[in-house]
Amino acid sequence: MLVGIGPGSVEHMTGRARAAIAEADTIIGYVTYIKLVADLIEGKEVIRKSMTEELDRAIEALERARAGKKVALVSSGDAGVYGMAGPTYEVLFQAGWTPDSGIEVEIVPGASAINSCAARVGAPLTHDFCAISLSDLLTPWPVIARRLDAAAAADFVVALYNPRSGRRTRQITEAQRLFLRHRRPETPVAIVKSAYRRRENIVFTTLAQMVDADIGMLSTVLIGNSSTFVRHGCMVTPRGYANKYDLAQGCTHEGEKAGRSLSTGLLGWLQNLQADVADGISLEELARRHRLPLEYLRDTLAEPLPEALEAVSEEGGE
Amino acid sequence: MLVGIGPGSVEHMTGRARAAIAEADTIIGYVTYIKLVADLIEGKEVIRKSMTEELDRAIEALERARAGKKVALVSSGDAGVYGMAGPTYEVLFQAGWTPDSGIEVEIVPGASAINSCAARVGAPLTHDFCAISLSDLLTPWPVIARRLDAAAAADFVVALYNPRSGRRTRQITEAQRLFLRHRRPETPVAIVKSAYRRRENIVFTTLAQMVDADIGMLSTVLIGNSSTFVRHGCMVTPRGYANKYDLAQGCTHEGEKAGRSLSTGLLGWLQNLQADVADGISLEELARRHRLPLEYLRDTLAEPLPEALEAVSEEGGE
Repeated sequence: MLVGIGPGSVEHMTGRARAAIAEADTIIGYVTYIKLVADLIEGKEVIRKSMTEELDRAIEALERARAGKKVALVSSGDAGVYGMAGPTYEVLFQAGWTPDSGIEVEIVPGASAINSCAARVGAPLTHDFCAISLSDLLTPWPVIARRLDAAAAADFVVALYNPRSGRRTRQITEAQRLFLRHRRPETPVAIVKSAYRRRENIVFTTLAQMVDADIGMLSTVLIGNSSTFVRHGCMVTPRGYANKYDLAQGCTHEGEKAGRSLSTGLLGWLQNLQADVADGISLEELARRHRLPLEYLRDTLAEPLPEALEAVSEEGGE
Repeated sequence: MLVGIGPGSVEHMTGRARAAIAEADTIIGYVTYIKLVADLIEGKEVIRKSMTEELDRAIEALERARAGKKVALVSSGDAGVYGMAGPTYEVLFQAGWTPDSGIEVEIVPGASAINSCAARVGAPLTHDFCAISLSDLLTPWPVIARRLDAAAAADFVVALYNPRSGRRTRQITEAQRLFLRHRRPETPVAIVKSAYRRRENIVFTTLAQMVDADIGMLSTVLIGNSSTFVRHGCMVTPRGYANKYDLAQGCTHEGEKAGRSLSTGLLGWLQNLQADVADGISLEELARRHRLPLEYLRDTLAEPLPEALEAVSEEGGE
């Protein structure tokens, strides 16, 4: 059982996470997380490992499971997000494991750092977002840099995991350098350390100043998109209601309908593109205007427009 | 209280989510989610809303809170991820709310669809990932398309939220079109519907075939990156151990050290770049090779290389 315990406070563990630990014969994990579940582990075998021994932890878990033990591998956050789920499957496959080999794998999901940190600063993730780890222990820097550049250019809200350590100090400066090519220096940034734990610390800063903040191994750095703002100590990314509604009046803008795609949604946009092409505007010019690949515009315009589906019932939630 | 209840099974709710609902005088939410907490809501005011009325739900919550009620706004997944946290802050600010106005806001984090769906299919998110909503109800299509294109090009694992509805059927085809410009047709894709619920359904398919699968409002589409694979019914994205370790032998590759950055990590990469420049290779050529902006290479090379920090103690986990 790969158990994600969430941010690291008992009340934010799920029922299933607690039950999995209670059911297990052997608990493997980092000391700090095992302390949190002290009430559940009496009489069990407990294997405390340090942070760097991920593969060792997975190998140890497999050995115990082969010996007939029920094992809980405890991770903070979500075991699937930069957590133990990956190394465990790598070790299992390497060892020739199959699902019918008698060893079952269960992954118990939890809130990852991105969810917990967001909850503590407001509503920064209400729109599209990315998680990027700045650790180059296993990943070549150009791969990380390309992701930073792409995420910055496409206006994602971005959470940086593993932003800085004693040894890795320049990565965050490089991330800033890449972001400043696409985002305003005053873009809001929140740095959240140890969310929901005793030493929780939250700092609001900006893209221009973030490298001067106290950032360490237990920090997550949340960089807003072009519409994210901070007001009254809350970092919020608007979901886009203002694109459709007059928020003061509570009614839709002209040409927009509640429960329907925006007039600049896919179908409206395709119709406008067709009209622009009919008006003699070149695909090169349209690709530039919309900042999309020319081949994409050409290929999507080559397909017939779908009928407007007026008969279909109102669409559900966002 | 904005309460994320996770995937929608009682055992995956956190203690805090259950306590928040138990403490509340008024519960507002979608009928399906309220049914899950039937045991906690006896004697309370319950306001059931349909999916499309997000702003109404937030306004109703504010009105009740002003009348002195403790209100729980219940969301599936995480209230901060395409959930009620965003609309609620938008309504609060619109109404002139401040943190010292006597109305407190608490966001209770939970596992979002990306975490729950990943847990059900294996370990697809062990490396950098994005969440992108295909809904164009509030977001212009070119914004969504640019994000799809960027995420595909930079080799993120991607979770598509709101991939298809009765009315919005072509968006997923457009997403596929954009991805196929950067990823192999056989890239693994998992489509997870109603994770951890009674009608859970998981389909493994490929980028080339995903649009033919049963995809609806309750589906999340997980698209692997260039190294994601499916084996024995598990979708796994390797974390990168193979870059550093000989997994069969358990030792590091030549030139690599456990607990240290890769030889192609930031510092090693910068040293190699300097050597390439000294050898007369142009920045244009290097930018092409590394698929990074020329200006970025120029600017980072203009800074002195940091000393290798041999004295600093071993780094912690990934």
